[in-house]
Amino acid sequence: MHEFELIGRLTPLLPANEFVVLGAGDDCAVLDLGDPTSHTLFKTDAVVEGIHFHRDAEPEQIGHKAIARCLSDVAAMGGRATAAVVTLALPPGRDPMWSEALYRGLCRTAARYQVAVVGGETTTNPGQALLSVALLGRVERGRAVLRSGAKIGDAILVSGELGGSIAGRHLEFEPRLAEGSWLATTFSPHAMIDLSDGLAGDLRHVLTASGGLGAEIHAPALPITRAARLRAREGDLAKPALVAALTDGEDFELLFTLAASDAVPVMDGWRARFPGTRITCIGRVTPGPQILMRDQRGIRPMPRGGYEHFAGNA
Amino acid sequence: MHEFELIGRLTPLLPANEFVVLGAGDDCAVLDLGDPTSHTLFKTDAVVEGIHFHRDAEPEQIGHKAIARCLSDVAAMGGRATAAVVTLALPPGRDPMWSEALYRGLCRTAARYQVAVVGGETTTNPGQALLSVALLGRVERGRAVLRSGAKIGDAILVSGELGGSIAGRHLEFEPRLAEGSWLATTFSPHAMIDLSDGLAGDLRHVLTASGGLGAEIHAPALPITRAARLRAREGDLAKPALVAALTDGEDFELLFTLAASDAVPVMDGWRARFPGTRITCIGRVTPGPQILMRDQRGIRPMPRGGYEHFAGNA
Repeated sequence: MHEFELIGRLTPLLPANEFVVLGAGDDCAVLDLGDPTSHTLFKTDAVVEGIHFHRDAEPEQIGHKAIARCLSDVAAMGGRATAAVVTLALPPGRDPMWSEALYRGLCRTAARYQVAVVGGETTTNPGQALLSVALLGRVERGRAVLRSGAKIGDAILVSGELGGSIAGRHLEFEPRLAEGSWLATTFSPHAMIDLSDGLAGDLRHVLTASGGLGAEIHAPALPITRAARLRAREGDLAKPALVAALTDGEDFELLFTLAASDAVPVMDGWRARFPGTRITCIGRVTPGPQILMRDQRGIRPMPRGGYEHFAGNA
Repeated sequence: MHEFELIGRLTPLLPANEFVVLGAGDDCAVLDLGDPTSHTLFKTDAVVEGIHFHRDAEPEQIGHKAIARCLSDVAAMGGRATAAVVTLALPPGRDPMWSEALYRGLCRTAARYQVAVVGGETTTNPGQALLSVALLGRVERGRAVLRSGAKIGDAILVSGELGGSIAGRHLEFEPRLAEGSWLATTFSPHAMIDLSDGLAGDLRHVLTASGGLGAEIHAPALPITRAARLRAREGDLAKPALVAALTDGEDFELLFTLAASDAVPVMDGWRARFPGTRITCIGRVTPGPQILMRDQRGIRPMPRGGYEHFAGNA
């Protein structure tokens, strides 16, 4: 059974209560815990040795990645992150210095984003290490940016550059917290998601959540990383750079949609405020339901099959 | 390196911020997220196949256990639980019906305690299943019951019966949420902990956190489960029932201390309100630092070495 199928079967089981503003299915859950001005964001995510990182990766980077993935989810809601708890599951005999270095990396990143780490659990996991992080965030009441708000005619924008994360960026990326929060408080983005499964798949999530809409993507506009371009030259079997930008996972950039009339003001404001991070308008939302790619040769359906690892969120 | 040593090295690394009332080290962290009347509790915990449950355990019971362990931690702070997120890490090829049954058990228990489940992550974990739960709770501001408040002369009380949990109760126990919350709101317990590592070890945690105090335990008063008594008769190598009650893990009962003058009113109130759950005064807090056992033969130090699995909380 496919990951999304399993999640589809599990989601209806989940109980709700009076604290839930938005349950499972978005980048974070949204809770009303009684603060008159803000809602609470809640998210968990895990990284597993051999799947999300190699055994010989620097432990500081593994710790960074584990929390940065959750931070990226808070960014995609337009929130700021507040507090995390961690479970570190280790094979017997793993060098304690490795665990300490991993925590050092995790805590350094937490501190850089003013996030408290308020609990650390350790347990045994024969075979490989696993690191699970649960993160809280906050967002002004009613200002959380969901996946489900895209509208026909919206401009589709993306931060940074896409593809080839596996070459190294997946261990080093910085979550777009400042950018996401600035967007949510300064403008009114209709929908936002962080790119973890690849643009093609994650854009589809937004369009599906928004009622089965479609999109037209201007292929030549897609911002592609140097890593993806280099890998594309590695021979006849290499993935073309455009396909990498569409389907590689773990970009951890922000994809958002907003009224077409806001696109230029947002890009101008973004460039003034975040000169080190590209912002690109890559297309627009259509009645759908197809995602179409336009380039100099014409218009055609976007290739199917975003990068899918067996790791997702219900 | 021993689990507690590792945690001792990691804890100083953890960053704090303005939201933290109490960081790592108690049953839950305590956060001030802006609700004028309550604080937020935050806890994570994991169960691992082959360590915390057998491969052939009923999946519904595994799901129950995973969340009930966290609920027990919220109970030990005197709180109520509000919302959980879950990570289920599965070996490739695990039957999806197994996962669904596990979620059904987890969600049934969550619903019974009015807890929302607002996120479910799945990922791969070669070798064995692992289930990590992060839980939020709430408690009236300033009413969270910590481990660190025990005072010399306090009565020491324990709920339920102890020992032999491995015979089955560890998969079926009910967290003492109603009891913990009633205690915290009706009386003023000085310190509380849930019994996960065994009475001897967990009492030591309370006494150490309270400034290096000691205790005198009235051995004949200790409430011992039928399971522990039965196992004690299994032969010369069987663990004596008293030792089981002191050192077996996963009782998930509440241990708390309060002013000696409150002991009788609390026990009377408890028995009226929770007639199905024993409440026992097992001794008193002393200047310490030793834990002494008293019985008809005299007084002697409590045997060292509580049950320790490689799983604890920093």
